[in-house]
Amino acid sequence: MWHVADTTKPILEALAGRRPERTPVWFMRQAGRSLPEYREARGDTAMLEACLTPELAAELTLQPVRRYGVDAAIFYSDIMTPLKLAGVGVEIARGRGPVFDSPVRTASDVRDLLAHKVEDWSLIEQAASIVARELEGSSTTLLGFAGAPFTLASYIIQGGPSKDHLAARSFMRAEPEAWAELASWCADISAGFLAAQVRGGAQGVQLFDSWAGSLAPAVYEDHALPYSARALQALAGTPRIHFAVGAAHLLELMARPADALGIDWRIGLSEAAARVPGKPLQGNLDPAVLFLEDDAVAAEVRAVLDAGAAAPAHIFNLGHGVPPNADPAKLQHVVDLVHEGKAE
Amino acid sequence: MWHVADTTKPILEALAGRRPERTPVWFMRQAGRSLPEYREARGDTAMLEACLTPELAAELTLQPVRRYGVDAAIFYSDIMTPLKLAGVGVEIARGRGPVFDSPVRTASDVRDLLAHKVEDWSLIEQAASIVARELEGSSTTLLGFAGAPFTLASYIIQGGPSKDHLAARSFMRAEPEAWAELASWCADISAGFLAAQVRGGAQGVQLFDSWAGSLAPAVYEDHALPYSARALQALAGTPRIHFAVGAAHLLELMARPADALGIDWRIGLSEAAARVPGKPLQGNLDPAVLFLEDDAVAAEVRAVLDAGAAAPAHIFNLGHGVPPNADPAKLQHVVDLVHEGKAE
Repeated sequence: MWHVADTTKPILEALAGRRPERTPVWFMRQAGRSLPEYREARGDTAMLEACLTPELAAELTLQPVRRYGVDAAIFYSDIMTPLKLAGVGVEIARGRGPVFDSPVRTASDVRDLLAHKVEDWSLIEQAASIVARELEGSSTTLLGFAGAPFTLASYIIQGGPSKDHLAARSFMRAEPEAWAELASWCADISAGFLAAQVRGGAQGVQLFDSWAGSLAPAVYEDHALPYSARALQALAGTPRIHFAVGAAHLLELMARPADALGIDWRIGLSEAAARVPGKPLQGNLDPAVLFLEDDAVAAEVRAVLDAGAAAPAHIFNLGHGVPPNADPAKLQHVVDLVHEGKAE
Repeated sequence: MWHVADTTKPILEALAGRRPERTPVWFMRQAGRSLPEYREARGDTAMLEACLTPELAAELTLQPVRRYGVDAAIFYSDIMTPLKLAGVGVEIARGRGPVFDSPVRTASDVRDLLAHKVEDWSLIEQAASIVARELEGSSTTLLGFAGAPFTLASYIIQGGPSKDHLAARSFMRAEPEAWAELASWCADISAGFLAAQVRGGAQGVQLFDSWAGSLAPAVYEDHALPYSARALQALAGTPRIHFAVGAAHLLELMARPADALGIDWRIGLSEAAARVPGKPLQGNLDPAVLFLEDDAVAAEVRAVLDAGAAAPAHIFNLGHGVPPNADPAKLQHVVDLVHEGKAE
């Protein structure tokens, strides 16, 4: 349980279903290539190495908080970081995504993978605790970050990036027992990753399911949701946000194990609020809006704020991550508009 | 209007809202890399060159009809074929997709593009008429193929493949007039492409909107649907199927200008039937199912047939294109199951 004093933090107020004085705002992928200070600090350091260097990961987490005055610091990491810590052979190829030394294609490959365990989460705890110390006394909340089991398992089976995640959708049906073992392993890895961030000082968490939108509801319910629920249930007591892209057809299912739901830009927050009554919602400005003139941005921000009023509580965010070529000045404009609450 | 005699063709029966004796079936991208005879016939011929060689395009269109006994021949082409015919500098990069010599980034770039017109559709008409002649007297229907204006314009603006089509979503808001001109030009190109196929003998058409699913309903309604409607209205009198991927949130809008709706695998046909009552539906076996054992395939085919019974008429198809690594034997299995109508 988080301390009573912390509930004055706007993000925690909203996650508890109340409306703070001003709408809180942060951006998925706010720490990243769109920031010059990020490109400078990260330099040529490989992605997963940066994630496993506590001072650097903490610095990258804090940069957007200092610059924008956003209400959340999202822990800077990659969904593959805990797999690396478990000794799995994976790297992040620039501009492509995760690439595995040995993709998992058979039930026997799954058994080999399950032998990997994270023995020591201290690099993650350290990074989170540096951030938490820096944020002490501020109204900014550190949020933990992890990939959802379905998305992790999709990458593991595909062995690399894919447009359509076909291999995972076939594997889960062809090898349901091996899939259950793999997805359970991923759930425990994600839960362990989030728990380490909470031990370091994260006061809320977000589970990112990038590819869940590629599943039909019945398939999601049978083969993906149980494992997301397993990961989120391990974090009970910490407010939990659940987010997937292109998943308008899955909202009711995704809401079940979560305290709040992240919504992408494809459906309006008022429609989402009607479908998952009682849930705080997070979202959902189309990132494409960041490339418009300031007054057009203001009109779209206003529309999202208005639609968000239909939910019991609203955390402003984009509907997806900050594009690498976004202008930080536009993001600042959005933060200011949301905080002023009078974007007209 | 199509001839009365032709309505004995199962696809045309279904498109007219009736239930033929057996459920008709074809597959999006049935002509393509999954077939050894395709790889042999196409050889090293560049994609757009193959599409503009009438005998070859006709042969590639007919191959899956001969092999599988499917009820439709989908005209073998690429959504970029008509742009090439209009003299636009575009090629299809193997494994990547369309790449343009000069992406359209400004209103002035749009004006330059609008100067391009197709003077001569005869290569398309010839290819279609070779196919139509071959199919004479059979129950197989030649369907015309074209990309929808939003998808075409997205590629043109992005200048190449993209994961998220951000540039198009920004451009349509930042430059609404230039967008309207560009999308209208694309609509007329698509309509011209389909009309040439109909003159050659196509008896139905399908408009493919690969990327429409990335738009919120209000944005789709304002900036994409009017141009799809413009293209489809130009084909009035020919049965028109409208299809997009990941577009469960857009079904009601997409149904408006179409005689039938293609559904991807993310939502059930019975749910789709309830949302667009009175429309014949096409779909929607998850292509991932093609990698399962025969009896598992049969169970999934049965489930799609059962769900399709909720629509006034049902054309069996995949929920997306045939994956290049699919086994033709599995596709044959699906055709046989659907035609027997007793996949258990």
